[in-house]
Amino acid sequence: MPDTMPKSPTQSLAEEFCSLLKEGKDAEAIDKFYADDVRHVEPFSFDGSSPVSQGKATIKEAVAKFMQSYEFHSGGVGEPRSNGDQFAVEMWMDCTFKEGPMAGQRHEMKETALYTVKDGKISEARFFMGS
Amino acid sequence: MPDTMPKSPTQSLAEEFCSLLKEGKDAEAIDKFYADDVRHVEPFSFDGSSPVSQGKATIKEAVAKFMQSYEFHSGGVGEPRSNGDQFAVEMWMDCTFKEGPMAGQRHEMKETALYTVKDGKISEARFFMGS
Repeated sequence: MPDTMPKSPTQSLAEEFCSLLKEGKDAEAIDKFYADDVRHVEPFSFDGSSPVSQGKATIKEAVAKFMQSYEFHSGGVGEPRSNGDQFAVEMWMDCTFKEGPMAGQRHEMKETALYTVKDGKISEARFFMGS
Repeated sequence: MPDTMPKSPTQSLAEEFCSLLKEGKDAEAIDKFYADDVRHVEPFSFDGSSPVSQGKATIKEAVAKFMQSYEFHSGGVGEPRSNGDQFAVEMWMDCTFKEGPMAGQRHEMKETALYTVKDGKISEARFFMGS
């Protein structure tokens, strides 16, 4: 984007949201930016349950639980990029799972997260994973 | 994604499509994978025209014209990641524009492209750019 172009509201929100994720402040990011009826759409689930979860409180709890489920080796969050009311950002993590079907396995995860913003809040996060 | 999970049709198409892009075979990728009424949705336009373009022939011509508009220094296409009927992929390029409002300027572009697949063809490409 040319430096002279004004930053869109979506891009500004995206940068603030991703700053919190970069600091590991996921709970604060959810509190501040997620809509009450936010949806998380994963590409699949490991255990056969629905890959779609809904509701800020439910998702906040699931994220906190997930963050306890692995030993973190390294990871990061990229720079967000926007188009209209959506933004995309890269995330990666090298971790060893402590529980679940992949317990004991060290895994490098890379994903693209696509967020949709509605009325100033994140209404959906959709996660993309590769082969 | 666990190695044991079968590759989805979207992920298979994404990998074949991105292989062509990596080889610089954009025209062939468009011919093979774009639907006739495909849409390109850019985050903005430099010249005030609509950031949305439609139609395989129109877009193929615009892409060919764009690829003639810069001097290429380096660039690449990442690994595609999918969720349902969509896939996302990173693209980057270091180039100097030969014409247009940024003529003579060397520019590093990074973007995320989000493709939607419908009936086995790409029906939309949406491009995300950062600050």
